[in-house]
Amino acid sequence: MNVSTHREIERKFLVRKMPDGLTSCSRAEISQGYLVSLDDGLQVRLRKSGEGFSLTYKRGIGNVREEREVELTAEQFDALWPATEGKRLAKTRYEIPLGEHTVEIDVYHERHEGLIVAEEEFDEEEAAKNFRPPDWLGDDVTGDPRYSNQLLAS
Amino acid sequence: MNVSTHREIERKFLVRKMPDGLTSCSRAEISQGYLVSLDDGLQVRLRKSGEGFSLTYKRGIGNVREEREVELTAEQFDALWPATEGKRLAKTRYEIPLGEHTVEIDVYHERHEGLIVAEEEFDEEEAAKNFRPPDWLGDDVTGDPRYSNQLLAS
Repeated sequence: MNVSTHREIERKFLVRKMPDGLTSCSRAEISQGYLVSLDDGLQVRLRKSGEGFSLTYKRGIGNVREEREVELTAEQFDALWPATEGKRLAKTRYEIPLGEHTVEIDVYHERHEGLIVAEEEFDEEEAAKNFRPPDWLGDDVTGDPRYSNQLLAS
Repeated sequence: MNVSTHREIERKFLVRKMPDGLTSCSRAEISQGYLVSLDDGLQVRLRKSGEGFSLTYKRGIGNVREEREVELTAEQFDALWPATEGKRLAKTRYEIPLGEHTVEIDVYHERHEGLIVAEEEFDEEEAAKNFRPPDWLGDDVTGDPRYSNQLLAS
């Protein structure tokens, strides 16, 4: 059981062009939907990533958030998933090594086809502030609500 | 796995005096807390009842509501429970046979000590309307927000 409780510090960028070597990277098809998704950042999210299922509780706004995640069985997921109707999105996630970190690139599908966003998570706010993005990353959209998954799913 | 998706039709009463024969009835100690609890009736509730754990999603207000419930493992429950801090309540629930139905009597504890509420669930709205409460039931508080568990937990 993958149970994590932590405070999330991350930065988010638009992707100017896809980096080289993607075909050799880890990749997952993700479908996610929201049981709850509020303007103040409170959310309860269901996610299917590859063959894994999870429920995530998040609270707070900005680059430091509280997050609690539990794995679900397929049966638990299937029982709750219908309640997310109208609040869903689908994306392909690539995980790309970058120095000592991993960058997640999300390629959105369906009505958000064409949108590609990269996220990098940090242990400390100082490291997040000092991060120098490679040239294939474009505008810094950290905290920009237009690129929150909550809004993209609504 | 107990997975239920249904529309709930119920009536709620204050309890004037406890009915006879309670000691022979089914009884459970319940602790519940809310990950989400909104005025419009949207809620995500965690519950420990005896040795069982569950997560319930509810939407809607009044005597007809949508409800989806899944059993949780103790580990899943423990990972999410801290997020309900400040939005919890404890009660003893008795299940009492009454004709062809079962009445649930909730005896609240801690800061709600002294409050006792009974709930009966029906298959159809017509049956709910026609229900004649026995004399040990008092005021009909169906839909009265003062006696919602959401409010009692806040």
